[in-house]
This record gives sequence, structure tokens and C-alpha cells, in this order.
Amino acid sequence: VHTRPLAAIDEVFREVESGAADFGVVPVENSTEGVINHTLDMFLLSPLKICGEVELRIHHHLLAKDGDRRQLRRIVSHQQSLAQCREWLDSNLPALERVAVSSNAEAARLAAGDAQTAAIAGESAARIYGLQPLASNIEDNPDNTTRFLVIGRMEAKPSGRDKTTLLVSGKNRPGALHRLLAPLARHGINMTRIESRPSRRSRWEYVFFVDIDGHAKDRKLAKALARLEREAAFVRMLGSYPKAVV
Amino acid sequence: VHTRPLAAIDEVFREVESGAADFGVVPVENSTEGVINHTLDMFLLSPLKICGEVELRIHHHLLAKDGDRRQLRRIVSHQQSLAQCREWLDSNLPALERVAVSSNAEAARLAAGDAQTAAIAGESAARIYGLQPLASNIEDNPDNTTRFLVIGRMEAKPSGRDKTTLLVSGKNRPGALHRLLAPLARHGINMTRIESRPSRRSRWEYVFFVDIDGHAKDRKLAKALARLEREAAFVRMLGSYPKAVV
Repeated sequence: VHTRPLAAIDEVFREVESGAADFGVVPVENSTEGVINHTLDMFLLSPLKICGEVELRIHHHLLAKDGDRRQLRRIVSHQQSLAQCREWLDSNLPALERVAVSSNAEAARLAAGDAQTAAIAGESAARIYGLQPLASNIEDNPDNTTRFLVIGRMEAKPSGRDKTTLLVSGKNRPGALHRLLAPLARHGINMTRIESRPSRRSRWEYVFFVDIDGHAKDRKLAKALARLEREAAFVRMLGSYPKAVV
Repeated sequence: VHTRPLAAIDEVFREVESGAADFGVVPVENSTEGVINHTLDMFLLSPLKICGEVELRIHHHLLAKDGDRRQLRRIVSHQQSLAQCREWLDSNLPALERVAVSSNAEAARLAAGDAQTAAIAGESAARIYGLQPLASNIEDNPDNTTRFLVIGRMEAKPSGRDKTTLLVSGKNRPGALHRLLAPLARHGINMTRIESRPSRRSRWEYVFFVDIDGHAKDRKLAKALARLEREAAFVRMLGSYPKAVV
């Protein structure tokens, strides 16, 4: 497999949509900081499917061009990584400005070009950009894990241990949210996750990202989804795919 | 009423908790960019109640110490405001670095001290910090609105047009989420909003912020909540308060 790093989440979607890449890997949720909104919002516009998921234990390191902390003026990283290290930064480098950039790869690239800039990024970024670690494992939560989605243009076959992700919006009326979820419960489908995002169509209107156990080809699940489609204003299957092995 | 601006959301909570202020106003949700995670996460630790909500149409302006765009090197603002103006910035000032700071008030303060820094902030910040508008109403969405919560140490009385916000976590078992919400539906309580955040206790465990119509003193609602308490691992009433008048 050939892998290629890109500077931002929307570029990953674009490369896969255009066919320049077969699959993309994008972060969707961190155990400390919650969902990555940018990734969820991309699915509102993209035709891509979710083909898989991966969970990775995330360690963050403070990386710089050379090993001297005293000349640092600022720390760059993705907004989520800055948040995952907030307490460590508050106690160890409270005076340094924190700058959110589009990705940790981009942060490492910036640090490689400027001795006053340190990046928060992973070990592989240190290797690729020739950076020195000033501090290691600076994430606040010792259990810090990020879940990534594999996105592509094909659908994954049932593996026997699958999950399905739907994008749903309700009709705008009282009780809509419960009515939307009732068909799943009635058919004994376990909903493991619900996340809402602004629909971007009108104010205080939402779409829901719903994760359920099972593959869309399972008979029970197919029935529940057919029922859900009648209740919802809008349903799109984002994909059925094997659950992450932890 | 005496008002006092503070640099960050956690400072607002702290000032009200300590009794230095009677009430605080914190942003909780924007119509384009979604919830403000930092505010929701503060409720996990704070004993404060929600006493009210306010919706404000938000206009963003590009503000600087003097009216010359050419000397600008960077744009500072709260992460949410940068996101609400992303398209405008991408087309008008793509080359300038964007720096996320703790609040728009803090951004305006920084711009007032450095002619190379422009802030994205509101009109009142321009007045307070003596900044010039370089561009006005630069928010991408013409309908851009932010909902704020009023936080305090007292409970609001029923007004006849109230909503109630709960912080709930389910028991860790299949179908927990649906079981949690079922008592509300059974008692005809309209859930208008559900938002999940990491519990910060263990990995992939969530708490839910649930908004429902009505006041906790309403008989029907009190019954449903008593039932919900038996189903949930944890319930905390964040407050019943008059709905925002739009």
C-alpha cells in the first residue's frame, strides 16, 4: 500500500472523491475531546462511504527544530491536540502562545522551518520532519485514544462484527427525535452512539449521526431501516463496516 | 446592572461560583458551528444552574488598530468565530495566519496592542478597544445566531414557557440510550435537543445534555424525571428556565 500524508481533513475527502486515492483515513472522535466536527460536517456534502474504523492510542510530544525550550515563542498543533494537552501546557508552558493549525503534520512542518515554533505531534511527524522531542507523552489523559474512519467509494461486506452509521434528520415537529429512534428500539437494534450537528439549512435544525450494531444487510436491521426511512425527513447510509478491534 | 467582560468561559464560571458575580453569560451553541464544547464540559464539574437563555444574531467584523490591511500578518479570534468566517477568510485573506485565542474580547485586546494583528470580534469590542473596522459582517452564514446561557446559583420560577436541561448518563449496556429516553416519550415530554460529550471517566463513555419542553415543577415532567432517575446511572438537573424569545 502506498500512503500519503495530507495537510487537512477536506483534502483527504477530495483526494478519495477524485479517485486519486482509493481510501482515506480521517479522525472522527477522541476519547477526551469528543467528535471532530469538521469530519462529520464533510459527510453532509461528500458522497463517500465509511468502509472501516481504527482506534489508535494517541501520544503527543512537544517537538522542535533544536532541543532548546528557551527560544520558543509559540506552540502550534491541531485544535484537538492543543485541547488534549491543555493541562500540561497550562502547568509547563503557560506563557507561550498556542496557535491552532489545520493538522499535526502541518504543525510539524511549521516547526521544522522556525526554531521559535514548537509543534505538538506524534513520533512519526518527528521522524519525517527531523524534529527533536522536548517532552514526551504530554497528553492530559493517560488513556487518550482517537477513532479514525476509513473512507472510500466501496461498501464493506458483512464480517459478523459490524456497525452501521446513518445520517438522519427528523421532521420538524414535537417528539420528532424520539419517533425517529423508536423503530430501531422496536426491532431490537442497539444504538451505540448519537451525535448531532447543525443541518446548515436553517437555524436550530439538526442532522444526527447514529451508530448502530450490525450490518445493513442483516434482515432485522434492514427492516428497521425501512421503517426509519418512513419516519425521517432524510436518511443516508454512510456505511456498514467491521468494528474497530481494540 | 453592572457588567464585566472576562477573557474566557471558565473564568465566567469561576466568578459566579465564588459569588463575585451574581450571574454569568456563556455561549452554548452557534447555529452554524454547533455546540461550544468548553461550556458543556464546564457543567460536568460546576454546581451552577442554568437560569435563562438568550439568542443573539451574531455579526463579525475584521478589526485592527489602524485601517491598513497591508501590514497585517495574522488574524486572531475565538476558534468558533474563525470557523464562522472561514469562507470569507479563505476568499479574502487566504495568506494570513489564523490564531485561535480564548475569546473575541481577548482577540480585540491583542489587536489593540499590535498593528500586525487583526481581530474578528463584534462592534462593542471595537468600541471598547478603539479598533477600526477593516470589513463588516464577514460571517459566512447570513443567519448566524448564537445561543447563550445565563448561569447562576438560583433556580428560575415557572414562566409558562420554559425548558429544562438535564445532564444524564446511561448504564453501560445494550439499548441503554433508548431506555434512558423512553420515560420522557411515555409521559409525552418533548425532547428538543440531545448532545453527547465524553464523560472523561472512561473511554467511549458519554454524558448527554438533554433539553426538554416544560419546567421541572410541572406535574407531568416531575413524574417522567422520577422515572428517568431509576433508569439512568446518573442524572443532574441543570435548570428549568424561560425559553429564549426570538
